[in-house]
Formats: sequence, C-alpha cells, structure tokens
Amino acid sequence: MRVTILAAALALSFSAHAREGMWVPQQLPEIAGPLKEAGLELPPEQLANLTGDPMGAVVALGGCTASFVSPEGLVVTNHHCAYGAIQLNSTAESNLMEVGFNATTRGEELSAGPNARVYVMDRITDVTDQVQAAAGDLGGIERNKALEDIQKQLIAGCEEGEGYRCTLYSFFSGQTYRLFRQVEIKDVRLVYAPPGSIGNYGGEVDNWMWPRHTGDFAFYRAYVGKDGKPAAYSEDNVPYKPNQHLKLAAQGLEKGDFVMVAGYPGTTSRYALYDEFQAVADWQYPKVGQHLRNLVGIIETAGKDDADIEVKYASQIRGYQNAMKNWAGQLEGFERIDAAGTKRAEEQAVLAWLRKQGDDGKAGLQAHARLVELAAETRATRERDLIVGQIAGGGLLGNLRMLHRLAIESTKPDAERTVGYQQRDLPRIEGAVRQLDRRYHPAMEKQLMAYWLAEYIQLPADQRVEVIDAWLGGNDQAAIDRALERTYANTRLADTDARLALLEADQAAVEAMDDPLLKLAVALYPTMKAVEDRNDARAGDQNRYRPVYLAAVQGYKRDQGKGVYPDANLSLRITYGNVMGYSPKDGVYYTPFTSLDGLVAKATSEEPFNAPKSQLDAIAAMSDKEKAAVPVNFLSDLDITGGNSGSPVLNGKGELVGLAFDGNWESVSSNWVFDPAMTRMIAVDHRYMVWIMDKVYPAPHLLKEMGAR
Amino acid sequence: MRVTILAAALALSFSAHAREGMWVPQQLPEIAGPLKEAGLELPPEQLANLTGDPMGAVVALGGCTASFVSPEGLVVTNHHCAYGAIQLNSTAESNLMEVGFNATTRGEELSAGPNARVYVMDRITDVTDQVQAAAGDLGGIERNKALEDIQKQLIAGCEEGEGYRCTLYSFFSGQTYRLFRQVEIKDVRLVYAPPGSIGNYGGEVDNWMWPRHTGDFAFYRAYVGKDGKPAAYSEDNVPYKPNQHLKLAAQGLEKGDFVMVAGYPGTTSRYALYDEFQAVADWQYPKVGQHLRNLVGIIETAGKDDADIEVKYASQIRGYQNAMKNWAGQLEGFERIDAAGTKRAEEQAVLAWLRKQGDDGKAGLQAHARLVELAAETRATRERDLIVGQIAGGGLLGNLRMLHRLAIESTKPDAERTVGYQQRDLPRIEGAVRQLDRRYHPAMEKQLMAYWLAEYIQLPADQRVEVIDAWLGGNDQAAIDRALERTYANTRLADTDARLALLEADQAAVEAMDDPLLKLAVALYPTMKAVEDRNDARAGDQNRYRPVYLAAVQGYKRDQGKGVYPDANLSLRITYGNVMGYSPKDGVYYTPFTSLDGLVAKATSEEPFNAPKSQLDAIAAMSDKEKAAVPVNFLSDLDITGGNSGSPVLNGKGELVGLAFDGNWESVSSNWVFDPAMTRMIAVDHRYMVWIMDKVYPAPHLLKEMGAR
Repeated sequence: MRVTILAAALALSFSAHAREGMWVPQQLPEIAGPLKEAGLELPPEQLANLTGDPMGAVVALGGCTASFVSPEGLVVTNHHCAYGAIQLNSTAESNLMEVGFNATTRGEELSAGPNARVYVMDRITDVTDQVQAAAGDLGGIERNKALEDIQKQLIAGCEEGEGYRCTLYSFFSGQTYRLFRQVEIKDVRLVYAPPGSIGNYGGEVDNWMWPRHTGDFAFYRAYVGKDGKPAAYSEDNVPYKPNQHLKLAAQGLEKGDFVMVAGYPGTTSRYALYDEFQAVADWQYPKVGQHLRNLVGIIETAGKDDADIEVKYASQIRGYQNAMKNWAGQLEGFERIDAAGTKRAEEQAVLAWLRKQGDDGKAGLQAHARLVELAAETRATRERDLIVGQIAGGGLLGNLRMLHRLAIESTKPDAERTVGYQQRDLPRIEGAVRQLDRRYHPAMEKQLMAYWLAEYIQLPADQRVEVIDAWLGGNDQAAIDRALERTYANTRLADTDARLALLEADQAAVEAMDDPLLKLAVALYPTMKAVEDRNDARAGDQNRYRPVYLAAVQGYKRDQGKGVYPDANLSLRITYGNVMGYSPKDGVYYTPFTSLDGLVAKATSEEPFNAPKSQLDAIAAMSDKEKAAVPVNFLSDLDITGGNSGSPVLNGKGELVGLAFDGNWESVSSNWVFDPAMTRMIAVDHRYMVWIMDKVYPAPHLLKEMGAR
Repeated sequence: MRVTILAAALALSFSAHAREGMWVPQQLPEIAGPLKEAGLELPPEQLANLTGDPMGAVVALGGCTASFVSPEGLVVTNHHCAYGAIQLNSTAESNLMEVGFNATTRGEELSAGPNARVYVMDRITDVTDQVQAAAGDLGGIERNKALEDIQKQLIAGCEEGEGYRCTLYSFFSGQTYRLFRQVEIKDVRLVYAPPGSIGNYGGEVDNWMWPRHTGDFAFYRAYVGKDGKPAAYSEDNVPYKPNQHLKLAAQGLEKGDFVMVAGYPGTTSRYALYDEFQAVADWQYPKVGQHLRNLVGIIETAGKDDADIEVKYASQIRGYQNAMKNWAGQLEGFERIDAAGTKRAEEQAVLAWLRKQGDDGKAGLQAHARLVELAAETRATRERDLIVGQIAGGGLLGNLRMLHRLAIESTKPDAERTVGYQQRDLPRIEGAVRQLDRRYHPAMEKQLMAYWLAEYIQLPADQRVEVIDAWLGGNDQAAIDRALERTYANTRLADTDARLALLEADQAAVEAMDDPLLKLAVALYPTMKAVEDRNDARAGDQNRYRPVYLAAVQGYKRDQGKGVYPDANLSLRITYGNVMGYSPKDGVYYTPFTSLDGLVAKATSEEPFNAPKSQLDAIAAMSDKEKAAVPVNFLSDLDITGGNSGSPVLNGKGELVGLAFDGNWESVSSNWVFDPAMTRMIAVDHRYMVWIMDKVYPAPHLLKEMGAR
C-alpha cells in the first residue's frame, strides 16, 4: 500500500511542469545539459548538424512538418497535413477522404498538386549585419521598403543555382536574421492515406481533446528529375534520394521516456505587449470568432442543399471550425491562468526594470511607448479593416485581385517587385489560379460576400470605402443583392482558362478588360494598396522599435535566471521533454497513452467515430497482451504549435516513435502565455501506424520500405 | 523515472477490482480474513457485537443511515438525509435550505417533524423456522396472507414493551428471515445544517459525479422522555444517551487506506431474473423515465409563475430528477458492461447447472419457469398499472385514499389489519395527513392528474377502469378538465383539520361524506384493492418459488468459488475496501481525493456552484500546506446503494473518517449487475466537515461535544 501512495506522489510531482522552449538549432550548446538530463542518448552536438542524422531527415511542407523515412524519398506527415492533396484527388465517385488511398506501385502514386512542396534543409546563414546595415535608422514605410529590398537581394543571391528556396527569418522581431536555404522539391505525390475514419477519427469533436484516438498519419513521396534536381511534376521523374532518413524505433515508448521534436512551428506571441494581447483576447477571439460561427452556419446550410458546395467549401469550414474551437480554448486558458494579469504584471516588471537602468533604460522605454501607440493605431480601424479585407480577399474576387496585382508588379524589374509577386512566385500563383476551380461556387461566394457587405453598410461614414460604396450604389440589402447579381452573373472569369490567360496579360490589358468582377478588383487596388502601405509603415516602425524593447525583456529575463528563446516564426526549432500525462482539473488525471480498447469504446457507426469494421474486427480478435503492444496516441510535455503538425517525434536514440499532430485543449492559450502545468503535445504512436499498415489498411510494401518488416 | 513507471503499473493493478458484497452481520466470520487483509485493525469479532463499539453507534433514520457522535445523542448524517427536516422548518422569510441552520443552544434545536425517527439497534433474531412453518406449502394470495399474519404476530410479540420498533427482513427472497428489534426514538431535532451552497454544493449537476466537492453533512439530536424511554416531541424531553458513539479519527485517510461502512442499504436486484432485468432496462428506465422528464417540465413551468408551487414541489422535483439521472446512468452502465448479455448468460449457466443435477435440479427448474410466467403476467398490464397508480396515488387524493383505507381496516381487530394500517402506524399516518399541507397545491395537483389522465384515455378498452371512466364522463381533454375542476373546486378536504377529523371517523361515516374527491377515493377502492390482491397473489407465488431458484443460484456460485450475500433489503449491512480512484475511460484516471482548490475552481456566483463568500475567503487565506490537510470528498471501492446515505465511514481502528453520500455515475448500474472495475463510493471527508464547522459556518460547541477541540 505504501508503495502505491509514494508512487502517486512521485508521479504527480514529476508531471508538475511542462518544458517551455522552442529552441533554435544555434541554441543547442545552451540546452545540451538539460537535453542529456531529460534522457537524450545521442551526443547533443549530433543534433547541431542539420543535414546529418537525424536532423537532416526533417523537412518542411510549408505549414506542416514531415520527415523522410526511407532512402527512396518516402515522407511521413499527418493525415491532416495531406488533407489538401487528398481532397484534390477526390471526386464525387471516389472520395479519398472517406475511403483512403493506398498506392500499391510507384505508378499509382498521385500528384499532391502543383503547389505541394517538400523543403529539405541545406544551410542556415546569419545575415543580421547585412540586414541591419540596410535598414539603418530608417522608420516607417521607408524602413519596410529597405527591409524588403535587402530581403529580396539576399534571397536572390541565395537562390542562385536551380532548385533552392531561400527564406529570411527574423528572430526576436528583427534582433537577428538568418537565411535558410532549402532544396525545394516540386513533385510531391500522395502514397498512402488511411480512410478518414482512421486518419481523422474523432474529427472536430475530438480536435484538441484528450483522450484521443486519431491515426493522423499519411505518406508522400518526393520526386525529382532524372538528374536528381528538383523539377515540376513529370511522369519521367524519379524518387528523391535523401541524405538522411529516420528509422522506426525498435522499442516503443513508456511513461517518462525522453522525446524530442524537430519541426517548423508557425507563430507564437509570447513576447507580445499587453495591448497586443488584449486585441486578441478582447476582440479577435470573441468578436471575429462570432463571425466565423455565423459563416460556418451559412456554408453548412447551403452545403445541405448542394453537394458541390459541400465538397468545395469543406476545407474552408474545417479551417473556420478549427480556429473557432482553438480561440474558445485560448479564451478558457486565458481565464484559467489569468493571462491578462500575468501579461500586464510581466510588462510592468520589465518597465520597472528599465527605469532602474537609468539612461541605459531610456531607449527601451521609448520603444515601448512607440509600440503602444502603434497598437492603438491598429485598434482604431480594425473592424473596418477586417470587413473590407474579407470582402476583397475571398475566392474569385481575391484571385482576380492577385492577377491584377501581378500585372502591376510585372511592370517593374523582378528585384523591385513586391514580395510574393516575383518571378519565383509565378508557379505558386498559377497553382492558385488553377485550384480555385475546386474551391469556388458562385452562389456560395455571393452569399459570403453578402454577409460581409451587410456588415460593411453598418460602418460609420468616416470608415467607408468610396469604391465599394460606388459599386454597391445603395446602402441596403437590396443594393447588395443587386450589385452581387450584376457582377457575378456577367463575369467570365470563373473560367480557369480565362483566368490563366490573365497571367500573361499586361497591366493595361487587364485594366481594359470589360468584366464586371475584374473591374471591381481593379477599382479596389488603390484602397487595398493604401491599407497595405499603412500596414507596411507600421511594420517598419515595429521592426525598428520592437527589437529594442525585446532586448530589455531578454535582459530582464536573464536577470531572473530564465532561458530565452525567440517566438516561433516558421523556422526550424527543437523542443524536448518526456512522455507524461497531466491533471486537467481537481480529481482528474489524464494518463499519457490511449489504447485500442478506448478507440472501440468511442466507436459508433456515425462520423466522426465511424471506425471501420475491418479495424473493429481486428481489435476484437486481439488478446489483451497484443492490444497492450499497440498504444494509439500519447502525451508529452513538449512545446509545439501549428506548423509542428507532422513533426517526427524522436526517442533518446533519435529514432522515430510517433508524429506530433495536436496540442491539448489546455495548451492552446500557451501561444500567448505559456502554462507549464497543462501544456501537452498529442502524438500518434508509431506502433499504431505500423499496426494499421499491417492489419487494417495494409501496405506491406511501405512497411518493408521503412525496414519495419 | 523507472520508479514512476513501476508505480503507475502498481496503482493500476491495485485499482482493478472493487469489492462486491453487502455482507450481513451474521457473515462476519466468513469475511474476517479478507477484512484483516484489507486493513482492519480491530478484531473482526468486535464488529459482530451490534450493540458494542463501534457498531452500536450506527443507527437507521428510515431511508438513510446515521451515527451517534457524542454521549449526548448527537447524530451525524447527510445534509440530503436531513433535507425534509430542513425544508419543514423553512419559511418564505427564512429558507434554511439556503442559509443553513445552526442551533447554538439545545433550546434552539428544532423538531425534525412528527415522522422523523432514529432507530437504534437492539437485537436480531433468526425466525426462519417460524415463518416457513406458517407459510407451509401455500401459494398465491393465501401464502401472502399467511406471511402477513406471521409477520404481524412476530412483530407484535417483539414490540411488547414500550419504545421498540420491530421489522421482519427476508433474505434471499424468503430463504432466511430475521427479526430486527430497534429502539424507536421519536423526538428528533435538527441541530446543524450548513447552507445549501455547502451541503448541496454542485446540486443536481454534480449528483452521482466525480470530481465532487459536496459538504453533504448535517446533525440531529435524539431526544427521549425524562425516564430515558422514547417519547413523542416534548419540550421536557432530554437528550438520549447512546451506549456507543463514534470518535473522530485523529489521522486522516490516504490513498489505499482501509475503510468500512455499516449501514442500511435499501434495494439491490442482483439476483433478478433476466426478464425482470429487462422490464427495467427496456421499459421502466426509458419509458417511465420519459414521463418523469415530462412531469419535471410541467412542475418547473408552474413553479416559475408561483413561488408557493415552487417551494411545495421542490422535493418532488428533486426526487424525479434524481431518478431520471440515476436511470440514465444505469442504462449507460448496462450498455457499457453488456448487463443484459451477462444476465442472460449467467441465468443460462444456472439452468444448465440445474439440468446437470438430474432429479435434484427439477425443483429449481420448475421454480424458474414459474417466476418467468409471473414476470410475463406483470408485463402484460404494466402500462395501465403505472397510469392508474399515478392517478390514484398522488397528493391529496392519495391522502384521502389512505384515510378511507384506514377506516376500512379499523373495522377489523388490530392483528388482522393490513400492514401499514395497524395501531402502530397511526402516528405515521397522522404525520402524513398533517404534512400534506406543505406539499400540496390544488392547481399543481390538477395539472399532474391531467397529465396522467391524458395518458389514461389512450389506453385500449380492455385496460380501462370503470370507476375512472364514470368519473371522467368522457374520453377527451375537455372531459378531463371538467372532472378535475368539478372535483377539486368542491372538495373541502384540502383543509388539514378536516382531514384530521377523518382519522377518527368510521367506515360508514367516511363513505357517507358528501365530498367529491373523497367520493372518488372511495369509488376507487375496489379497483385498487383488486390490483393489490393480484400483486399479493404474485408476491405469494414469488415467495414460494424464488427461494427455491435462488438456492440453485447459490449452489452454482459456490461451485464456482464465489462468495454469496443476499440482495440489499434495508437491513444492516457491512461493506469494506480501500480508498482508491478509478479509470472512467481510456486515458482518464479519477484520483481518490478532491481539494479545496478544486472547489474554488468550480465556484460561480450561480446555484449550484454558489460557494459562500466566507468559504472562498477562508480558502484564499490558506497556505498550500493548510489546504492539503483538508480534502473535501474521497472515493473508495465499497459496495453501497440508496439507504446507505449518511453511513459513517470508519477507518481500520473503527474511527469516523467521513460520511458516505453517493455512488459514482458508473456505479449506479451495479444495483442490477455489479461492475467491479468502476463501482466507487463517494464520501465527504471528516476533515472537511470539521473545517467547515471551525472556519466557515462555525459550531465550536459541537466540535467540542464531539471531542474534536
């Protein structure tokens, strides 16, 4: 009895603190000690080699992370990261989201789409000096322009030689700049995706939730030209041979074991000002969240009557629902940990610390004051900016605005064009033009526009936009309906070929075209450009002042003996810790692994809990011992965020033990204020992946390719 | 790390099985070994002395259990067991359910009502031979009559000498009979009840739920005449001096510690036939449950417009809601453990075992067949019996039917009267007549009657009741409304004094009275008597055949090495086990103790989570260490059911460590089929009780009286 009691106490004290920290590879020496202490068996310096084993196997997909798991370019990531490719290859007759996809030969592997990418790390260069020299003491839009120019210049130099994609990352909002060079693989193919009833088991209901039983994994393969260099999709292409690939762990994880994740987390805002935090907690999450709820209702209703709308807007709804739930969770978390109070107190402490520095603190205090002003400026027009942005930015109209902008930018030399409209961006833009077809339905777009226009006509006079007023020709619902009807009934640019032709047209030709929707797009340009310029000016000022203030925050934190890592920015990060559960509330403890029995207990015949019969039968035939050998999902105290999806989870030996695919409900607020008590990562166990591919939706050839058989 | 993993495994294996068994005191030798193994420090034989320490301190309240905790007759039980007394002493101006009650002197202690009782165990006698000799080979209603007669005879003999209440209990449906003699204390006073925001914290929302934070405790005091003998309430009465009272434990419980409960569990049906089980799982819980939901809706709507109705029917609603939630939980549990499949398989196994016994098994098989027939007979008229019973049994009409029946029974010698209408029952009947006032509102009663009459008029012709048809004078809603209006507008018997007068009236006088509601009550007598006779006949047959079949079940179980205890029957039982949590589902573990912090986390300003400010302030002022010393509620694997509420929880030394007040959600189905994995008892920790009485709603005099200060 005593043993049991002691044990429980140990388990609790052990699980008290999650490991905050999305460390940049350059910080590895700083965390080498803690890494070993937590259980890393590899020499920490081995992780510093970003093209070596195992780090060289980790790749970015743009929005998700993935990893090579065979010498033949096989890539594993989350089912939800491959969702776009799965949707793209689905038809009304063969819905791969439902039935899954399993290429039994290379020839059956399907293109993941013209925009699908696999980015393989090549090198990272510190370019802080060059960037800061270029920006100098400039402020506002001049600074922003100078930063854009140096960025383009650095990237252009970096991308010399075919097949590379370069990205400039700013750390601590401009304190440090690093240039990443990645091999950009453009022929990505879908190899294997379990049925949605496995890969998306639990769906929106279980999203962010524990206990979890989602088989969130899928496989791509990277293809290159016969010369081994990246090339657009071609039947002649051959599988890419990565320098590194991960091996599946021979032994599964247990509670307390070391785990680490390398990946590309998107955005955190842990160094945001109190005012910036409040703009989210007080306005964006509650107010914009309500708009998303309204839009989901509108799309769902329309989708019930029209299967075409249902399919085309499924992904948009999914995105909205994900955001709504995430924001609700963040608000709950903000309240639970009094994030506003913490934020304010921390900021006040930094300001007090700065004041104590005397003259040395003045620059920091001034920078803070200027950042507060910038936040207030943004706040003043946020409602209007949201509404106009939604009207102008959506679907077909957004597509046409992009094409018009391309025509404008194309009048300049490539180096002077706005980021996103350069020569290097053309394939992506063409992909977006082509794919709109699968995500556009005129009736739905009109309804969505009507929703935002109804909001627009309620704006006060001084916030109105002349061009929109003129186009509407009235200030009521009837005017909205008339304008939309007139415009959409007569546009010919819903046709993909017609839009593709615009890719080649020059500015004058585009602006001369007699198409009512294109005319609206063209007319909106000055307004939207003014908004962009205003935002760029603010960005320039922020880039000038924020690093100064964040240097103060760093100084204050280091004074307190705290480690400091930069906010997530889509660049490569390392996070580590241990397999562990947590207590979501008094009297309740979440255990770190879920089981096949738990999966069966959730099963109904209804989506999202419609586990396939083949799976339920397979489980029913297993002994308790066999079932115990196949955990489904597991928890650990790692610090991840969106963008980390699909990241390989590695054990102390650097072997693959699972894929990160979610954070728990209580962790979502950690993007703003980290909660060490409850922040947990949710991963799919590699034993479950192997079992699915062995017994339920068999892919023996892939298991063999990965060396698992 | 290893220690943690090992520990978790231990904790899990430890919590795998709850202890089934509501043992009768006579079985103590049988369970002496397991009791010591589980951690009992007292000699097990000490527990066999039902008037010694500690068992002699345990008392029955009739529907609840309680215990003496001072030499001055102080009794502790659940807040919800004292609910009736609290409600009885509440007024619109002073709602004791809300504000609590705290008598600072003996003189301030309030009568718990004329029907409140404390039953103190005196002796138990085995009377099986006498009962079986009287019943002989009789069947049907004759057997039932013979059993009633011998019961009356035994009780009359037993109750000779003032102040005793005797009860005949049947074990294994008539295999064994035991006669309990208890001292019947009739002057019970309310001493202390915390505010409802403590005593009923969590209310219906948390009912049956874990994690739990309910301060479900209250104090009575037992009073007797100056001669030390039980007496009706009188200002001259003095506190009763019990032979035994419990001491508060000096040391609090920890996870894994031994605990036991002695108490008066009401009903379990673990030996019911499959068909009897199905009548509940297929019909009562889903179908009658729907009626209860409808009735709650009707009463709540009416209560919103009329505070008088709200107060008077609060208790009825509470009862309905409790049943609805309990039934829903049972249905959930039945599905979780496939109770129907288990029941059927077990019954088939017993029948197979009987068939293997050859001639020895024949009686068992015949008994089983007869019991199946009886279940089918009951099933045939259950809808009608429910509806007519509800029409005839409720509120004022039910009260009048009771008075009419009393007049009829009073024409016979006392010994021949139907059980419940003898001399000894008069005070209880008078109490029911007096208290109706607090639970009756004519508008509400008419609405409830109308609900059931609307059901009635849809019954098929062959199930109709002539008397009701005649009274209705039609078969539609208008007829119902007219009949109710006519009857209730003209009755004079809503007046308590008028009804009290009927207590003295003879049959002829009652039947001659020109009161429309009394006339209906009188007219219903033959119908209701016929139903009663039919049920009595079935009871007689069941009493004849069930012990024969249960002997087979016992034989079968003993063959399998399983312990056998009789179903709960309101008689004294002992259950024991250990403090432990459980896993309600994959990935989730419920820890065995809840904390003050958890209570605060639930607090809102809204009922039922309106923790008083004084309590929240007290908690806010405590250190973590101080809070850790005050657990709120705890779980253990004991086997209890309704009737056990208020039972003292004793540690291995026989000291008071808490009060049982609920089962967990997953345990409610265990009344039919025991689920060892998830059945847990919920108790309020005595440390929380003491803390409330010390810091929040202070009663230092009571703490002193209990020796806690």
